[in-house]
Amino acid sequence: MELHERLENYLARVEPLKPEFLDRAQERLDSLTKPLGSLGRLEEFAKRYVGIKEDLRPKIDQKTIVTLVGDHGVTEDNVSLYPREVTPQMVYNFIRQGAAINVLARLIGARLYVVDMGVDHDFEPMEGLIIKKIARGTQNITKGPAMTREEALQAIMGGTEIVETVMNQGVDIIGVGDMGIGNTTPSSAIIAAISHTPVKEVTGRGAGLDDKGLEKKIEAIETALQVNRPDPEDPLDVLAKLGGFEIAGITGVTIGAAAHRIPVVADGLISTAGILIAIEMSPRIKAYIFPSHNSVEIGHRVMLDRIGMASVLDLSMRLGEGTGAALGIQLVEAAVRIYNEMATFEEAGVSGIAGS
Amino acid sequence: MELHERLENYLARVEPLKPEFLDRAQERLDSLTKPLGSLGRLEEFAKRYVGIKEDLRPKIDQKTIVTLVGDHGVTEDNVSLYPREVTPQMVYNFIRQGAAINVLARLIGARLYVVDMGVDHDFEPMEGLIIKKIARGTQNITKGPAMTREEALQAIMGGTEIVETVMNQGVDIIGVGDMGIGNTTPSSAIIAAISHTPVKEVTGRGAGLDDKGLEKKIEAIETALQVNRPDPEDPLDVLAKLGGFEIAGITGVTIGAAAHRIPVVADGLISTAGILIAIEMSPRIKAYIFPSHNSVEIGHRVMLDRIGMASVLDLSMRLGEGTGAALGIQLVEAAVRIYNEMATFEEAGVSGIAGS
Repeated sequence: MELHERLENYLARVEPLKPEFLDRAQERLDSLTKPLGSLGRLEEFAKRYVGIKEDLRPKIDQKTIVTLVGDHGVTEDNVSLYPREVTPQMVYNFIRQGAAINVLARLIGARLYVVDMGVDHDFEPMEGLIIKKIARGTQNITKGPAMTREEALQAIMGGTEIVETVMNQGVDIIGVGDMGIGNTTPSSAIIAAISHTPVKEVTGRGAGLDDKGLEKKIEAIETALQVNRPDPEDPLDVLAKLGGFEIAGITGVTIGAAAHRIPVVADGLISTAGILIAIEMSPRIKAYIFPSHNSVEIGHRVMLDRIGMASVLDLSMRLGEGTGAALGIQLVEAAVRIYNEMATFEEAGVSGIAGS
Repeated sequence: MELHERLENYLARVEPLKPEFLDRAQERLDSLTKPLGSLGRLEEFAKRYVGIKEDLRPKIDQKTIVTLVGDHGVTEDNVSLYPREVTPQMVYNFIRQGAAINVLARLIGARLYVVDMGVDHDFEPMEGLIIKKIARGTQNITKGPAMTREEALQAIMGGTEIVETVMNQGVDIIGVGDMGIGNTTPSSAIIAAISHTPVKEVTGRGAGLDDKGLEKKIEAIETALQVNRPDPEDPLDVLAKLGGFEIAGITGVTIGAAAHRIPVVADGLISTAGILIAIEMSPRIKAYIFPSHNSVEIGHRVMLDRIGMASVLDLSMRLGEGTGAALGIQLVEAAVRIYNEMATFEEAGVSGIAGS
């Protein structure tokens, strides 16, 4: 089967959530010993989790974080504070358990899968590393497309295959993270293209650019938009021309997870760029996405606005890797535990609203 | 020793955090494999935790949530949607592990202590319940002071005694929650008095009042302010005239914890009212407080502004009990784990900033 057809098949498998499950979850939430609706977003999370799993007593036992990694041709334009070799160095750091995401994955009891989607380095096989490399980095988007349409499709399908690998180990929820020196540049470019927002309103300092560096980065993205003329109505075109292999992989993980009824927890700018492309391809996917934090990167809010989703954590973070997603998974878990474990008014012998 | 003297002694024991610990914590944070400052508030939390504990490798092993409970004379003015008997009913629900805070305390591995500060019910001794009852509910603040100055001091000192009880079991961090039908009314009254903010700008719907109920509640608070004329320069006066026994208890827990170098995690409106009174008594206490969520109750933000503290969770919650504090403790734990467990650039062999 052609790649494009396989993608269409996946997208067609994503179903809207069924009101019968959502309504029954709401009934249970309303019977629990708390004022109606007083647990806010946690109640929304629990309800949606029930709807996704189609299980009125769902559990979150197996948590997974997938951190997708890639390099970017645009780093030759000095859009990042850190040198390109940091990408493979951080992959080794992930495998040796030394990065922030390792700490948070341990804390929440999640399995961490690191995926080489397109790092400019050839890794030996290592426990915990999945190789789905499309190429050793994308092309420089200021000079032409980041990748071919075929490569973008390959990376997306690679993402769906990751979901199936993860499913073999058992998985209830997936947080999607990223790593890749320079990858805030393609992410900001994607949201600028899709939302027709001026580049300077979606471009931040990444790992810590100064004013001059930020200016150069904005120029690079403006050039990339002019050179590539991506079609905002065609998310695959936007992804191929401006994206990164890890971003395309995130799009694929998102589509694969939604097709398999597995909730996805977003991270920051790069993760949300990949998720946004998936939702642009099929708006039904939105119901499967849980937000986590607001990134410091200003493009992130524009993405969230486009999706119509509000984050629940405000930690001024801008690290990626899935760190925000890990904290978000904890909140979904809290929601599901509350849904399952709280006593009802009847069970607890607590009076309802006065006079009712 | 007189109660007032005992309180002054406690307040005098609260020390400012020492720069030597904060600076060394910052050095370590800056050496970890992440862009400088990219973990935002988590880095601030870790640094402050080191400063509070005066330990460069601090742990969070023993977590505690204290949920203080009291009744309120003002409920006779129908300021709450739920009848007053729900207060003791919820205490039984806490003891039987059926409430939201029980679920979240289990989830984060925290001990939960429920404290009767002034419930209109006489409890038999029960495992998990601490009795520090001052009276069976406060007086109606629309007619006179909620309590005498002596009772307010007793409740505060009761709070400091709770900290000592909790310390006997071992404690690294304390989340402070509340329960008490009607207790958003005194909490809104407190912040209106202290910040000179119009009552309608600090008063919300509590457990779910309709427009008419909200109007009545605002009127009740305005009456309480006129009748009692609390002195905003004297936080004990504000607390005694407008507060509740659980709010005064929270003030005491906060003061006791800060005096013993134990970090305190705030919850929503009522918890923050108690913490605010403590900080008004001694601004040094602020360094010992970690925020958690933004409550739906509009007075909460006014309190946070007054303290100069921004929350990190935005879950549209308005339950109390310490539910937000429990989620906040998880974030402080994440911060401390990251501080302790991440690899440094040197350990991981990761390059620093390009050209540096």
